Amino acid sequence: MKTKRKKSAIIIIGNEILSGKTLEKNSNFICNQLNEIGIICEEICIIPDNKKKIIEKVNFYRSKFDYVFTTGGIGPTHDDITSKSIAEAFDDRLILNKEAKERLEKHYSDDLFTKARLKMAYLPSKAKLIDNPVSIAPGFFIENIFVFPGVPRILEIMLIEFLKTFQKQPRFFKKNITTVLSEGLIGEYLESVQKKFKDLEIGSYPYFKKNSFGVSLLVKGEDRLRVNLASKLIFEFLNSKNGKPKLF
Amino acid sequence: MKTKRKKSAIIIIGNEILSGKTLEKNSNFICNQLNEIGIICEEICIIPDNKKKIIEKVNFYRSKFDYVFTTGGIGPTHDDITSKSIAEAFDDRLILNKEAKERLEKHYSDDLFTKARLKMAYLPSKAKLIDNPVSIAPGFFIENIFVFPGVPRILEIMLIEFLKTFQKQPRFFKKNITTVLSEGLIGEYLESVQKKFKDLEIGSYPYFKKNSFGVSLLVKGEDRLRVNLASKLIFEFLNSKNGKPKLF
Repeated sequence: MKTKRKKSAIIIIGNEILSGKTLEKNSNFICNQLNEIGIICEEICIIPDNKKKIIEKVNFYRSKFDYVFTTGGIGPTHDDITSKSIAEAFDDRLILNKEAKERLEKHYSDDLFTKARLKMAYLPSKAKLIDNPVSIAPGFFIENIFVFPGVPRILEIMLIEFLKTFQKQPRFFKKNITTVLSEGLIGEYLESVQKKFKDLEIGSYPYFKKNSFGVSLLVKGEDRLRVNLASKLIFEFLNSKNGKPKLF
Repeated sequence: MKTKRKKSAIIIIGNEILSGKTLEKNSNFICNQLNEIGIICEEICIIPDNKKKIIEKVNFYRSKFDYVFTTGGIGPTHDDITSKSIAEAFDDRLILNKEAKERLEKHYSDDLFTKARLKMAYLPSKAKLIDNPVSIAPGFFIENIFVFPGVPRILEIMLIEFLKTFQKQPRFFKKNITTVLSEGLIGEYLESVQKKFKDLEIGSYPYFKKNSFGVSLLVKGEDRLRVNLASKLIFEFLNSKNGKPKLF
């Protein structure tokens, strides 16, 4: 499926994910939000809190994708090194961002505005702020790199607000079909449909639930009629094989 | 934390993850299993079912890491292109693997051994099989690339069995400490401890639960005494600040 849509990538930063301590869910949230406005996510990488790695990935992705989202490592503790690393990736340096400092000052009383919290106002000199209505400390962006925190409930609210500034692109049309037949029995037919509909993406995903298993098919494309036509063909084939298809 | 441990990476292959349809959990399972035998996972990437991308990532990672695990794209349908792509990454080609074919033949009766299922016995000529006690169709490995299916319940059983053939490395020692104080209040002290214990990794992870929030700290290292000592210092600091620390 060829397309000229804007393409994005996600860089997830955090040792806790690579050690298995934390199940990473932010990328799934971001992918779904991007999908809502017709932006494709083409790649995700998950890396440790390591300056060299962050610089390497940020520079690689920003040259290859229209938009790059990062999560994690912009909090107040010693292991939060994302801002510093991204500054270096842009040959930039951290400065005390006046606006960020003012927001934090307003939010915290004097004795709670610690040195650790002030650290969150040190941002690359080229950074533009991304609002954080939850815990105030802002994210930021430089060119096509968008830097978000890793705490899901903060990231989620920030991202939803921020993506409102993006231009919506036409959404994909999609049809889901489920069947009780297994992939091995329908694979050949699916391939023949995919060959006829090269402009569509036909995905096949086996599922296992408590008392049942089967396959969930996803037909996706930019042309509604073609999506409907391919889905109808598949539905009728599955029906003829007693595959109890459901289309939705 | 410098170490000479074996390092691994994971390549997750599947459009359904990048579109947001599926929440990816296989990498978390693999990371935890690797952690159990003292192998570090240093990087994860998630890419679409796209031959060029698979070849690019496989060749990049296999030159940089001791072990590389892939999941997804080795089933019987047209969108399963991992085996073919990995063959190309190794300048190899797919051949009908006799052993894989025999296993599938034994498992399926004649009328169920479809052309689509036979496809799963076409593997790179250099491939060695990885047993699949669940749905029979094997995974495989070539040199340091280990190729697994994407269906979690199949991957999980295959991986647990397969990792028994790996040499165990000493595990890390870890201590968890939770506190009701927020990162902004403890960040400065944590940094001072991290500076004194450069051989340890001290991670700080804010959490939000239904009726509470706080920070979960992880102290990790190869020297049990040093881990205990750093944890004790942090615990005592948190206690002195009424942070209600719990150590486990």
